[in-house]
Amino acid sequence: MMDYIKSPMDIEKRSFEIIEEEMGKYDFSERELSVVKRVIHTTGDLQYKEIVYIREGAIDSALKLLKKGTTIYTDTNMAAAGINKKVLSKLNCKIECFVNREEIAKIAKDKGITRSMAAVEKAVEEGVEFFVFGNAPTALFKLKELVLQGKAKPKFIVGAPVGFVGAEESKKEIEKLNLPMITIRGRKGGSNIAAAIVNSLMYMITR
Amino acid sequence: MMDYIKSPMDIEKRSFEIIEEEMGKYDFSERELSVVKRVIHTTGDLQYKEIVYIREGAIDSALKLLKKGTTIYTDTNMAAAGINKKVLSKLNCKIECFVNREEIAKIAKDKGITRSMAAVEKAVEEGVEFFVFGNAPTALFKLKELVLQGKAKPKFIVGAPVGFVGAEESKKEIEKLNLPMITIRGRKGGSNIAAAIVNSLMYMITR
Repeated sequence: MMDYIKSPMDIEKRSFEIIEEEMGKYDFSERELSVVKRVIHTTGDLQYKEIVYIREGAIDSALKLLKKGTTIYTDTNMAAAGINKKVLSKLNCKIECFVNREEIAKIAKDKGITRSMAAVEKAVEEGVEFFVFGNAPTALFKLKELVLQGKAKPKFIVGAPVGFVGAEESKKEIEKLNLPMITIRGRKGGSNIAAAIVNSLMYMITR
Repeated sequence: MMDYIKSPMDIEKRSFEIIEEEMGKYDFSERELSVVKRVIHTTGDLQYKEIVYIREGAIDSALKLLKKGTTIYTDTNMAAAGINKKVLSKLNCKIECFVNREEIAKIAKDKGITRSMAAVEKAVEEGVEFFVFGNAPTALFKLKELVLQGKAKPKFIVGAPVGFVGAEESKKEIEKLNLPMITIRGRKGGSNIAAAIVNSLMYMITR
């Protein structure tokens, strides 16, 4: 029998200690730090220390929504899967993804847009205030359009699309809006990171 | 209206071209390269070029299982969520995760082990041959134990646990076994990467 730490909570605690040791200097508040550390924990990648952008007031806005019980829109099933369901239900929050619904596929086809874009339109129609993007730049561009048209009024955005085409640009565009948000700058990001950010916020009020 | 590429297939194609341009020199076969590129595409992180390890014959073993229709065990719901379901069903393959089943929680509690470990035991009992780990080092250690005890006979393993405690060690340990595998060396990895590796393999026989 090999010897290894078997308690998930012990693993997480030790992991956060190592991250703290290796991060070196930083300029985060305690709450910001818990977001950044969880992203590093999720990726094994210390570079996130430099590319997580947390707008002033964003954590307060997110926590206000989570405390009142909000619907969290995610652009992928993978981001939805990564969000801690026990904690989510403790907070009386729920997740909507929309992207794999048949009606969304039909709307996307009819309009000649991506399913991700159609899903954002649907979320806006349903009055969602908490938006999480871990994959689709097109969805983030679409949200910005809907904000500029006065149709969408997001109260908190996680902008973490990943990749080489449009991802970085989509995050730069959303940052131009004067809204509470946490983004990952540059090409990096992903559904796992988007979920980690949401979890770190939920844990601030439940742990 | 902002101008941006809206077709997911065009985004993917252009993304792979950029990755190819930026990767510089490499020593991968065409099939290996399609695994590595998809991992980079999923993370926005070119460093994966250096840390994806593909054992000789591993791709053949994986494709053989996928072609006959196999059960893919994943250690997280997030990895399961990231695997392309349309392609999966086209191949008559299915996914089992086990980790959130009540019986697994009970076994884990009774035995004082992680749910991830109990889930691997269950998968081995059920005769799973295709194992995918994107998160839990304990699950990968457990699989190695079961192989050494002659209980488990995996025919293909994706070893991509992520993090600062046990992840790197778990991958080193599994690499000591003479089995077909793809691993991510070092601390990096994750459920998104595990799913991307599986998708890249499925696409080799369906696209």
